[in-house]
Amino acid sequence: MPARRHPAKGRMNEKRLLDFLQRRYKSRGRGVATGIGDDAAVVRSPGAGADWVVTTDMLVEDVDFRRGWLTAGQLGWKSLATNLSDLAAMGARPRFFLAALAFPKDLAGSWVRRFYRGMDLLSERHGISLVGGDLSRSPAGIQVTVTAIGETRRNRPALRSGARAGDRIFVTGTLGLAAAGLHWLATGRGRPRTPAQRAALERFRTPEPRCDAGLWLAARGFPSAMMDLSDGLSTDLGRLCRSSGLGAEVWEDSLPLCRDTRGWGCNPRELALHGGEDFELLFCVPELSLPRLGRLYPASLPPIRCIGRMGRGRGIRLASSQGSAARILPQRGFDHFESRQPAPAGSR
Amino acid sequence: MPARRHPAKGRMNEKRLLDFLQRRYKSRGRGVATGIGDDAAVVRSPGAGADWVVTTDMLVEDVDFRRGWLTAGQLGWKSLATNLSDLAAMGARPRFFLAALAFPKDLAGSWVRRFYRGMDLLSERHGISLVGGDLSRSPAGIQVTVTAIGETRRNRPALRSGARAGDRIFVTGTLGLAAAGLHWLATGRGRPRTPAQRAALERFRTPEPRCDAGLWLAARGFPSAMMDLSDGLSTDLGRLCRSSGLGAEVWEDSLPLCRDTRGWGCNPRELALHGGEDFELLFCVPELSLPRLGRLYPASLPPIRCIGRMGRGRGIRLASSQGSAARILPQRGFDHFESRQPAPAGSR
Repeated sequence: MPARRHPAKGRMNEKRLLDFLQRRYKSRGRGVATGIGDDAAVVRSPGAGADWVVTTDMLVEDVDFRRGWLTAGQLGWKSLATNLSDLAAMGARPRFFLAALAFPKDLAGSWVRRFYRGMDLLSERHGISLVGGDLSRSPAGIQVTVTAIGETRRNRPALRSGARAGDRIFVTGTLGLAAAGLHWLATGRGRPRTPAQRAALERFRTPEPRCDAGLWLAARGFPSAMMDLSDGLSTDLGRLCRSSGLGAEVWEDSLPLCRDTRGWGCNPRELALHGGEDFELLFCVPELSLPRLGRLYPASLPPIRCIGRMGRGRGIRLASSQGSAARILPQRGFDHFESRQPAPAGSR
Repeated sequence: MPARRHPAKGRMNEKRLLDFLQRRYKSRGRGVATGIGDDAAVVRSPGAGADWVVTTDMLVEDVDFRRGWLTAGQLGWKSLATNLSDLAAMGARPRFFLAALAFPKDLAGSWVRRFYRGMDLLSERHGISLVGGDLSRSPAGIQVTVTAIGETRRNRPALRSGARAGDRIFVTGTLGLAAAGLHWLATGRGRPRTPAQRAALERFRTPEPRCDAGLWLAARGFPSAMMDLSDGLSTDLGRLCRSSGLGAEVWEDSLPLCRDTRGWGCNPRELALHGGEDFELLFCVPELSLPRLGRLYPASLPPIRCIGRMGRGRGIRLASSQGSAARILPQRGFDHFESRQPAPAGSR
């Protein structure tokens, strides 16, 4: 059951449904190494040296995306990227994917072809193949469901539940960029001009799933826990904490922000804490492994930053070096059933 | 790319899109034993003795189903059944599935729970596990995408493309029952009273994917080609013919009909030829294997019936024992982009 995107207000309803599903399906069937409740499932066949990792993600028009904000090709890219990000979060190597697409009768055939071309751009980069799918008419709006299948060494997937107290919390890349891109679009600002504006829009429209970093980290056994950041740090770290039965402390001054987003009315700190859809990796590393990680982590992979520490207790505390008292970080995730449509977080 | 359901008129648009996809994605990537164009894809990892078979199928409200004609539980059952039927058609053993569900905000939580219970009824029967999925809000209507994963012995999947001239054509069970059930509902006939009426409604609402028969047949290497009947015999046999580069002769008097459907205004022969959603198996067996098949086929599996023969040439000829000349069978498949909504075939 993958995490969701687009930051907003409520959270009761979707959480209750997910809880129902996790209770109902948590018991593992034969061959199920990891079932519902992580970024992806891990399944195996007897005797095989590798496990398969599978994940599925549905994007619904006007809930998960707006057609005016993404071209057909960008939607194709993004609908695959959200799934590859789930595989990255398990430390799995992407292999295959399937795409089911429903669209209104009056949609141009060229739109559909550009949608597939956008998926191809990303799939070629990862050397993976579209192996199946489905086409359907939709009475209203576009719906896409992509299912991605990856491979991981047996017993080597990185789950959300393995963190221990004292582990350091890391993220890849920059936080809040996608939300800044969403804010740019939602406030109707036209063509981007600065590099930061372009980067924010690119992150929102064609995010780069961190497959190489996830694979590198998991193959060397660094992460005690890992997941991808789809709903924003406060929400996703909250999930990791609950899965691991721990709390966390986040160091405000260590967050990898993009300060330039102030230029178009964003609050970079708020976006880094609550903005969704960055599809960066969030992972924990035991203190003892830190020197080795620092020595080995390749410069060719996206930069990683230590932003805090796991601890006993519950919830997330936000600590600042400026001496002000640590405060509890509220979770402001996106709930499909509470919010009307994508709204940028951290907008002033 | 699975075949589609609900019989109706047009076929240009969807076929053109499927052709585009098959041309675009027919080249096989690493580890892809069978890609787009069959009932399901077959993928493998190096060294593993078994192949994985994956398929995905999207059901869209008011295109693929109507909420008034199916309970939540029946929709859950059916959305899994269509996928298991694709696995059955490959001779694969179902193992795992994922379900993505989008629904309007005002849908009762109990509906969602009953939907999952319906899926459970079928999944428990096949000993398979729900391992993942997604939940999303939908601005209008319900959309379900199920992805199913099965296992097959290496190089033993039954494809559509392997038939040879002279092979006998078989089907499991009875043809036209689901379309008769759809006709019952579309003509607003209320509660069913006779066993045939109940059987037709059951077939339409909670079809039984023929996994055991498909597995038994494929494991013994009987089918030279196999697929499931989702869009009606005329359409699906046409696909098998094209995949195998052959034509076919269908013996009208051998079709396993349900004559009782006349009682509610159906034409049993037309339904057997063109009615969709039966989810029976269609398969070809070389003439030399017929005695062995007759001797070994277990009585515990759904009955099978020989309905014709593959031949050179193109198209499907319908032959009758009553001496009338054979005629060309038109294909009347459902096209999502040509037809407004599900319409029963063969209604008088």
